[in-house]
Amino acid sequence: MFKTQIVAARDGEITEAMRGIARDEYVREEAIREAVAAGRLVIPANRNHANLRPIGIGKILRTKINANIGNSALTSGVTDELEKLHCAVKYGADTVMDLSTGEHVNEIRARIINETSVPVGTVPIYQALTMVEDPMDISIELMLEVIAGQAEQGVDYMTLHAGLLKAHIPAAKKRLVGIVSRGGSILAKWMSTHGKENPLYTHFDDILAICRDYDVTLSLGDGMRPGCLADASDEAQFAELAVLGELVNRSRAAGVQAMVEGPGHIPLDEIEMNMRREEELCDGAPFYILGPVVTDCAPGYDHITSAIGATLGAYYGASMLCYVTPKEHLGLPNAQDVRDGVVAYKIAAHAADIALKRPHARERDDAISAARVDFDWEKQFSLALDPDKARALRAEAVREKRGEQAAPETPPPAPCDGAPTEEPEKYCTMCGPRFCSMRISREL
Amino acid sequence: MFKTQIVAARDGEITEAMRGIARDEYVREEAIREAVAAGRLVIPANRNHANLRPIGIGKILRTKINANIGNSALTSGVTDELEKLHCAVKYGADTVMDLSTGEHVNEIRARIINETSVPVGTVPIYQALTMVEDPMDISIELMLEVIAGQAEQGVDYMTLHAGLLKAHIPAAKKRLVGIVSRGGSILAKWMSTHGKENPLYTHFDDILAICRDYDVTLSLGDGMRPGCLADASDEAQFAELAVLGELVNRSRAAGVQAMVEGPGHIPLDEIEMNMRREEELCDGAPFYILGPVVTDCAPGYDHITSAIGATLGAYYGASMLCYVTPKEHLGLPNAQDVRDGVVAYKIAAHAADIALKRPHARERDDAISAARVDFDWEKQFSLALDPDKARALRAEAVREKRGEQAAPETPPPAPCDGAPTEEPEKYCTMCGPRFCSMRISREL
Repeated sequence: MFKTQIVAARDGEITEAMRGIARDEYVREEAIREAVAAGRLVIPANRNHANLRPIGIGKILRTKINANIGNSALTSGVTDELEKLHCAVKYGADTVMDLSTGEHVNEIRARIINETSVPVGTVPIYQALTMVEDPMDISIELMLEVIAGQAEQGVDYMTLHAGLLKAHIPAAKKRLVGIVSRGGSILAKWMSTHGKENPLYTHFDDILAICRDYDVTLSLGDGMRPGCLADASDEAQFAELAVLGELVNRSRAAGVQAMVEGPGHIPLDEIEMNMRREEELCDGAPFYILGPVVTDCAPGYDHITSAIGATLGAYYGASMLCYVTPKEHLGLPNAQDVRDGVVAYKIAAHAADIALKRPHARERDDAISAARVDFDWEKQFSLALDPDKARALRAEAVREKRGEQAAPETPPPAPCDGAPTEEPEKYCTMCGPRFCSMRISREL
Repeated sequence: MFKTQIVAARDGEITEAMRGIARDEYVREEAIREAVAAGRLVIPANRNHANLRPIGIGKILRTKINANIGNSALTSGVTDELEKLHCAVKYGADTVMDLSTGEHVNEIRARIINETSVPVGTVPIYQALTMVEDPMDISIELMLEVIAGQAEQGVDYMTLHAGLLKAHIPAAKKRLVGIVSRGGSILAKWMSTHGKENPLYTHFDDILAICRDYDVTLSLGDGMRPGCLADASDEAQFAELAVLGELVNRSRAAGVQAMVEGPGHIPLDEIEMNMRREEELCDGAPFYILGPVVTDCAPGYDHITSAIGATLGAYYGASMLCYVTPKEHLGLPNAQDVRDGVVAYKIAAHAADIALKRPHARERDDAISAARVDFDWEKQFSLALDPDKARALRAEAVREKRGEQAAPETPPPAPCDGAPTEEPEKYCTMCGPRFCSMRISREL
């Protein structure tokens, strides 16, 4: 009989996936097995995702990052989404989520699963919404049909906002910006309209049965994630989190892997508390956080506002970081935004891994620093998180230097003191050849 | 007789500058005076900087940011530097440092001081280097001449690497990348070459005499700032810091304001300790930090790697953040890099101010969040740290939406459910009109 990773781990088995992760991350196989068995580490690996290279998400492993792609009702087709997929993976996304809500959702998802070896996540309610005239016509039957269809297709993990209950809605109404999760807002309206409890909560066992058959990992969505600093760490958020903790336990009992999603917008001084709270309420289930954004007033730069929060989040215990792009709050990201978001989050994850002293995490930093001392530009580029960008900016600086020398207002620089000018690559344009601290420091 | 701010404060006087700062920052005048008297707050305000609008740098005030501009021996003339100056101030730099080491240093500095109302800082050794054939020909007489000349010109604060002593050099030789401060590396080589102590240390009283005459604030430079994670928090760094603490006390005793410069490259988990160490060793003198960069391997993105460190640094006590641009480690920044660096640092400073609950800090965030709820795009742009960027990205998303609708592979979207499509500005292209969580949340 087919066993999910968590069931196999409890049975004392070290699966092929666990072995691969142990090798990739310099962690003992038995430590991986123990963490999977306890539900503190998940391996999103649908049995139908043929060419998957499994990864693990949990505190004992390096921090993972996810890139959201997917079209909206208005924009972006298959070609664009595949371009974003390849861009995200090229720059280091560990997983991708297909959040398509527009045309061709099934076709786009099939192509994404087929073309990538990283785990693929979805938010099934988005597809369900494309199948009804009015969002209020969504039914649990439709949701289960979509979940089963996506599971069969090979989706490795699914976001389900099963912890947002009717009782939580009054708390959300006190907020400055209300509910900003798309799935959360639709479910809240559905509950209000029909006067019924969240169907994903009332039928959670049916969902678990499907997930267990394919080993779909549940990503328990935070429909109440705060959408601005004023709403952070409030009653609505933590009431839902307590329910997510209950659902973690039910998932584990059913042999289904589960992780928990988190905020959102959180001021810097509340990030550590938020990470600890999830760990306590959800019994150490891997925390998969979005950002958090640490200031609301920098649209156009939310890859930065959120990378700051994400770094701290990872340092205080989050296991996976969902990227945010510069287009957040403004529009749908294009491939350039995906690249900017992924690199910002690689930085966040890596900075946290270094601080947490994860095995071999700092080696790359020491290697690039050694290449700097040697003025070995090619080696620096090859060790950079984004070699193309580093190369392009260096080329730009060199071009501007040449342009400047030709400009009439500035005479050509006086001949410099000896060797350095003979070797133009042995300094950057920042200090120039005479005042290069690296060179002078070497001469000591 | 002319009094520096610190002397006036000790005499119980509340100066015009203190009154303005109290008004700008919602802090009591008497609290400002006390902090200036104690040396925990500096007001860089040269008596000869005619059109200066004074600001304060200290823990009881909002976090300040500095932008470095200035040409190198190779690139960039007066026009370019003034463009960078205006760009830096437009996007929110609280001070600028002119780090010119190339042609026309005096002319560039005069223009900068004349054209801006923000405090201007310099590193006098850079000018001294342009006045000698060989850096080893620098003398204390030349240094004092340059310092006096710049003080007369109206420079508000000066970086002097007076704490790097001969005894510290062996520790620097153990490092992976050695000394990365330009001033530090040249002084170290000078000491080794001549077998003498750092002249800025041995003649510190002469420097203080000049600074007191003009009220130049000393920015005690960290010549030993670590240039990579492997060198962080080492013996060389902290040995110098202890000497800087001694110089802080000598400055205060002489009636000269002083702040202390800090790292550099520091892993996330050592930032708090570094901030505490400075506070202890330097008796609460304002800490003016460069980044710190929290990973070495993201050249092209060091405005981000360092904004992460800077946010934490400010949260744990730094009073001013020296920006780092995307060109760091690659070349001299141009105006676009200046803008990217300044905005990243405004984010860092503001995120820290929110977390520290500085007076009125979060109001802007709450206002922009309220504008989001109202789909008031113009108000969102006007409240953004970089309105132009937010506007441009929104326009890009809308353009891409239109282009997509025209593309042959995607049919035009089906007519949407009622009002939302009639009001195209009432959603972003991210969720589209049907699934806009804000709109749905309002309908609750």
